[in-house]
Amino acid sequence: MSDLPKSIEIHEEGPREGFQIEAGPISTEDKIGFIDALSETGLTEIQVASFVNPKRVPGWADADAVVAGIKKSPGIAYTALWLNEKGLLRALEAEGLAMRGSISNCASEGFMIRNMNRDRKANVQVQHNQIDLYKKHDVPIYRGGIMAAFGCNFEGDIPVSRVLDTLAETLDILAEHDMTLPVVVLADTMGWATPLSVKRVVGAVRDRWPELRVGLHLHDTRGLGVANAYAGLEMGIEWFDSSVAGLGGCPFARHDGKPAAGNVCTEDLVFMCAEMGIETGIDLERLISVAEMAERIVGHELPGSVMRGGSLTRLREKLQ
Amino acid sequence: MSDLPKSIEIHEEGPREGFQIEAGPISTEDKIGFIDALSETGLTEIQVASFVNPKRVPGWADADAVVAGIKKSPGIAYTALWLNEKGLLRALEAEGLAMRGSISNCASEGFMIRNMNRDRKANVQVQHNQIDLYKKHDVPIYRGGIMAAFGCNFEGDIPVSRVLDTLAETLDILAEHDMTLPVVVLADTMGWATPLSVKRVVGAVRDRWPELRVGLHLHDTRGLGVANAYAGLEMGIEWFDSSVAGLGGCPFARHDGKPAAGNVCTEDLVFMCAEMGIETGIDLERLISVAEMAERIVGHELPGSVMRGGSLTRLREKLQ
Repeated sequence: MSDLPKSIEIHEEGPREGFQIEAGPISTEDKIGFIDALSETGLTEIQVASFVNPKRVPGWADADAVVAGIKKSPGIAYTALWLNEKGLLRALEAEGLAMRGSISNCASEGFMIRNMNRDRKANVQVQHNQIDLYKKHDVPIYRGGIMAAFGCNFEGDIPVSRVLDTLAETLDILAEHDMTLPVVVLADTMGWATPLSVKRVVGAVRDRWPELRVGLHLHDTRGLGVANAYAGLEMGIEWFDSSVAGLGGCPFARHDGKPAAGNVCTEDLVFMCAEMGIETGIDLERLISVAEMAERIVGHELPGSVMRGGSLTRLREKLQ
Repeated sequence: MSDLPKSIEIHEEGPREGFQIEAGPISTEDKIGFIDALSETGLTEIQVASFVNPKRVPGWADADAVVAGIKKSPGIAYTALWLNEKGLLRALEAEGLAMRGSISNCASEGFMIRNMNRDRKANVQVQHNQIDLYKKHDVPIYRGGIMAAFGCNFEGDIPVSRVLDTLAETLDILAEHDMTLPVVVLADTMGWATPLSVKRVVGAVRDRWPELRVGLHLHDTRGLGVANAYAGLEMGIEWFDSSVAGLGGCPFARHDGKPAAGNVCTEDLVFMCAEMGIETGIDLERLISVAEMAERIVGHELPGSVMRGGSLTRLREKLQ
C-alpha cells in the first residue's frame, strides 16, 4: 500500500532555531534546562547552539555557556551552527560537541544575494573555502543542504532543473577535494513546498543520484509542513530536520508583519510516524512535555498541535 | 505521478461550527456580515446556521435571524443543521435555505451513547424516523455521514471492518425506503486519522462500493488535518468539509483543558490544492480576508496558517 520507511532519523533544531529568533531575553539556565529535557526524549541529534556574531544574533551570545552547561548524554550528538572560522573555532573550543561539518548551497541566487550577500560565483569560492577550513580543523562533512529547493520569496518558483544543477555544483566542488556527500538535505527555506513538489524534487534527485541519501528540512509557513513530511515519507525519506513545539521561524517568510511558523514541529511529526507504525526512537509523551516547557520559556503559544490535542497513546491507556 | 483529482468540492462549515463553540456572544450582525463575505469567495455551499435547542447551544439562538439576514447569492447553497423535527421545521420556515437532508451513523457505539444518548439498535430506529421525517417534508437526502470513522476517544481504534459494517447498515436502512446515498462523508470526529488510515479506510469503502461517492470531514486536532486531506486527494477524494480559519473544534477532543483545533482549515486546504493545480473555484485572497475577519469577530487567534504565512500568489505578483 505504501513505500513508507520502517524508521526515520530526526535531527532536532529547536534550541538553535528557537533561541535565535525569539525576542527573549531567555536565560542561559532556561536554555540548558530545556536542552537537558530534550536529552531525555530519545533524540539522537540536537542542534544546541549557534556560534554566530552576538551583535547580529543576541539570543546566542551565550552559546559557549550553554554548551558548557548542558549534560552530555551518551548516544546523543550535540551539534552547533557556525558561519565562519571564528564561529567554528568557538565550537571547537566548546566541550563535548559533535563536530559535524555542513556545506550549504542555494537553488536561488536571489536569496543568496539577499541573505548571504554573495552571488552564485562567489558562493562556489565560499564553499571551497569552507571545505578547506573543515580539512584544516579535521571536521568531517556530515551533510549538505540545498536552500530554497522548493521556491523563493525573492525569485518565485524554482525549477527542478535548478535544484539538480545546484546539487551537481556542490557534488563537483566536493569531488575536487576527493570528498563525497553523506546526505543532501533539501530545504524548504521559505515555505513554498507542497506534497506534490516534494515528490517531484525528491524523485528527480533520486533519479539522477540513486545512491545519494536525501533528507528534508521543512518549514510550516503555510500549514503544509506535516503534509510535506508525509509526502517525503511516501518517497521513502527517512531523514528529517524538525523543531520541538515548532520553535523557530523564518524572518524572510513573514507576512504583513505577522510572524510565520517555523520548522515543522517535531512532536507532530513523531506523532504521525508513531500512529503509522514508523519508528522514531522518541518518547512522544516526554517530547510533548518538553514542547510545553518551550512555551513556558518563550512566554507565548507555539505552533505545535499534538501538545494541544494530546497524544492518542494516553487516550488508549485510559481506555484499557 | 499521482491520482490527484482535477478539481474538488469544498463544503464550508465555518459559520455553523464556529459560532456554536465560540464563547461569544457574537452579534447577529457580525454573523451575517461574515457569511455575506464568505459568499464572495467562490464557495458553492455554506452551512450557515444550526437550528438546535438554544438552551444547549446559545450561540445559535439567533439562527432564524441570521438566515433571514444574509444575502442569498445565486449559485450558492446555504444549508443548515438540525437534529430533530422541531429544528427541521424552523429550517423549512427560514427563507432561502437549500434543504439538504443528511443521515448520520457512527462507527463507535461508545461515542453514540456518550454524544447522542442511544445505542446502536436505538440508532437504527432513529435513522428510520429521520428518513420518514424527510419524506414527510419533501427534503431530499443529500449526504450520509459516518462519525468516528478513524478512531474514538471512548472506544479507541476503530477497525476498518466496523466502518464498512456501519456504512452497510446505513445503506440497508436507506434501501428499505427505496433510497440510495449520493455521497458518504467519512468523519474523523475526534482527530484520530493519519494519512495511512485515511488511505486504508477510503480504499476499503471503494473496494466494497466502487460506485459510491466518498467525501472526507477531517479535524485538525493533532496537526494532521491537511496531511490527511492530501492522503484523501491521493485516493481521488474530491469532496471535503472544511472550516474557514479552522473555526470550530470538537468538545470531545479537548486535552488538559486546552481547546483542540477544529475542522481542517478551508484556506489552508484551498492553498494546497491551488499550489498543486487542483481547482477549487475559490478566490484564496478573498478567503484569507474572511479568515482574518473571523479572528476579529471571535476576538482571538484561530488555527489557520496561510492567513499568517500569506499566499504565494501575492508573492509571485510582487516579483513580476
